[in-house]
Amino acid sequence: MHPVLPWQQPICAPSESHRQQALARQGQLTKPAGSLGRLESLAVTLAALQHSDTPAADRISIAVFAGDHGVCAEGISAFPQAVTGQMIANFVAGGAAISVMARQLGATLDVINLGTATPPPTSDGVLDETIAAGTANLAREAAMSSTQLEQALAAGDRAAQRAADQQAQLFIGGEMGIGNTTSASAVACALLAEPAEALAGPGTGLDADGVSHKATVIEQALTRHGDNREPLAVLASLGGFEIAALTGAIIGCAARGIPVLVDGFIVTVAALAAVRLRPELRDWLLFAHHSREPGHTRLLDALNAEPVLNLSMRLGEGSGAAVAVPVIRSACALHNGMATFADAGVNSAE
Amino acid sequence: MHPVLPWQQPICAPSESHRQQALARQGQLTKPAGSLGRLESLAVTLAALQHSDTPAADRISIAVFAGDHGVCAEGISAFPQAVTGQMIANFVAGGAAISVMARQLGATLDVINLGTATPPPTSDGVLDETIAAGTANLAREAAMSSTQLEQALAAGDRAAQRAADQQAQLFIGGEMGIGNTTSASAVACALLAEPAEALAGPGTGLDADGVSHKATVIEQALTRHGDNREPLAVLASLGGFEIAALTGAIIGCAARGIPVLVDGFIVTVAALAAVRLRPELRDWLLFAHHSREPGHTRLLDALNAEPVLNLSMRLGEGSGAAVAVPVIRSACALHNGMATFADAGVNSAE
Repeated sequence: MHPVLPWQQPICAPSESHRQQALARQGQLTKPAGSLGRLESLAVTLAALQHSDTPAADRISIAVFAGDHGVCAEGISAFPQAVTGQMIANFVAGGAAISVMARQLGATLDVINLGTATPPPTSDGVLDETIAAGTANLAREAAMSSTQLEQALAAGDRAAQRAADQQAQLFIGGEMGIGNTTSASAVACALLAEPAEALAGPGTGLDADGVSHKATVIEQALTRHGDNREPLAVLASLGGFEIAALTGAIIGCAARGIPVLVDGFIVTVAALAAVRLRPELRDWLLFAHHSREPGHTRLLDALNAEPVLNLSMRLGEGSGAAVAVPVIRSACALHNGMATFADAGVNSAE
Repeated sequence: MHPVLPWQQPICAPSESHRQQALARQGQLTKPAGSLGRLESLAVTLAALQHSDTPAADRISIAVFAGDHGVCAEGISAFPQAVTGQMIANFVAGGAAISVMARQLGATLDVINLGTATPPPTSDGVLDETIAAGTANLAREAAMSSTQLEQALAAGDRAAQRAADQQAQLFIGGEMGIGNTTSASAVACALLAEPAEALAGPGTGLDADGVSHKATVIEQALTRHGDNREPLAVLASLGGFEIAALTGAIIGCAARGIPVLVDGFIVTVAALAAVRLRPELRDWLLFAHHSREPGHTRLLDALNAEPVLNLSMRLGEGSGAAVAVPVIRSACALHNGMATFADAGVNSAE
C-alpha cells in the first residue's frame, strides 16, 4: 500500500464551539467591547485552533531550514554563497538573530541542513537532511527533480512531527539560503501570474541595479518554466529546498493541529504554495509581520493576511515570527487572566 | 528658597557616544545591514537614553493614575461614572488588563487614586493621592484650580521618583477615568488649535450620535476656555487629574533619566502637554502603539512619533504600552546577544 504523501494528509478542522465560547468570554472581560483589538481576535482564533478554553503559546517549536541555490551563479545576491553554511554554524552556536530569539522565548530551535554548496564549518547540533549541494540554477533548468522535491517536503513534514512530539502550541518555520529571495520571488510570480518586477526586491541588500538584474534573471526563469501554475510543479522548477521544506512543514502542522506563525517574504511564499495545494489549511496560518521586502504586500493580499507586526524587518530566519510571539502570549494571558464584569463587580456599558 | 517646581526640573541629555557605539555594533551583527528594522533603532535609542552599551527593558515601572471627571454630567461616556472607582479595585485585585500585563512582564504596578466621585470598593493596595472627588465640569468651568493642577503634577512626579527608586529601565504611565477621552480631546484641541470634530472619537464605545454630542460638549469647553495655548493653563481649564499627573510623571522621568513608553490617546495628550512645556524631553519618549481612537493619528503627527505597534487597541490603562514591552526586550536581546561577523566567522556583504 502506498503511504499518504506528506502534502495529501487530511487537514485538521478548527473548533467552532471553542471559537464561540472565546468570543463570548471576550465580551464579558472588564474592558470596553473590542478594545483589545487584534489581541481579541488572536486569542479567539487560537482557542478555535487549539480546541481549548485557555489558548496558549508557551511551547514554541522553531525549525530553520537552510539550503543553497544554483541561481547564485547569476549574481543575484549581495552576500557570497558560503554564508549559507556559515550561518548554519552561527544558528547552532547561538549567535544568529533566531538563536537569540529562541532563547528569549524559551523555544526549541531545530536547524536543518538541506544541502549547501560549501559545507558548514560545524555539523554539531545540525540536523542533516542533505538532498544535494544546493539546487540547480533555476534560470536555466529545473531547480530540483520531483524526487528531490518529495525529499524536501518530507523533511518539512518531519519537522512538523517533531513539533507535535514536543506538544508545540505554535510552530515557526524559518529559512536561510543565499539567493532564496530570487527563488521565492520566482515561485510567487508563477503562482500569482505576476511579472518579475512585481515581486523582485532587494533581498539582503541589492541596490536598484541589482534588483533590476535579479528581475531579469527571474523573468528568464519564468519564461523557461512556462504557464504551469500547479504548486508542486512550480516548487520543483523554481523553488529551493528550504522553501519546499517549509511548504511541507506548514501542511504537516495543519495536519497535526499545530497553528503556524508565518514569518516574512520567503515563508509567506511557502505558505502560498501550501494554501494552493490545500486551501483548507489557510485557517492554521497566523501572519507575524509585514516584511520590508516590497513583494510581501502582494503576497499578503493574495492570502488575505493581516500581519500582527510591521517593524520594517527583512532578515528571515523566522526572526519576525519570533518577535511576534510575545504579542500572541499577551493576547492569551489577557484572555485567560482578566476578570469578567461579574467577577469584578464592575458595571458594563449603559 | 522656593523649591524647583516639578515641571521646571532640568531634563537629562541622552548619550551621543553610546548612540554612536550602538549604531556601529548594529552594523557588525550577523545580519544584512538594517534588516532588523525598528528593532535596531529601538535598541540604539535605548542605549543612548540609558547611557549603556547593553540597553535593557527588564525592570519596568507601571503607574496607573485614576480620577473622575465632572464633564460626565454632560452624558459623554458609554459607561457610568462609578466604573472609575470599581476599576481601581479591579486594578489592585489583578483582574484588569494592565494587571494581567504587569504580571506577564514582571513589572511593578502602582495604582494611584487622584479622586473619584464614588469611592473604590476597596482601598487596599491603592496609593491615595486624592485631590478632590473628581474635576469640575470643564464644559462650564475650569476643570481644576491651579493648586489642584500642581497637586496632580506633583503626584506624577512622585511616581517618577518611585520608578527611579526601583531603578526602572522604562516607565509606563496608564490612566483610568470615565469621561477622560472628552477631557483629553479638549486639551489636545486647545494645544493644537484644532476644532473638536478633529479629535473627538468614540472613547469606550459611543455611537455616531454620541461622538457628535461629545464634540459639541468639547466645542463648548473650547469656547469657554478661549485661545490660551499655554500648557499649564490648558491642563487646568480642560484637563483631568490623571492627565495632569501623567504630564508630571513624564517630565519627572525625563528629569531622572528614565525612558517613557507612551501608551495610547490619553497618555499621548499628556505627553504633548509635557513636550509643549519642556520640548527637550521629546527624546525620552518612545511611542508604543497607534490607538484605534481616531484622534490619535493627529497627536502622533504633532509629536513626529512612529509607534511600535498598531493592533487596533483602544483600552487605555497603559495596556498598549505594556503589550509593546516585549518588542523592546527583543530589540535589546538581539542587540546584546547576537554575534558579530568577526566573532562568528561569517562573510559580510560583497
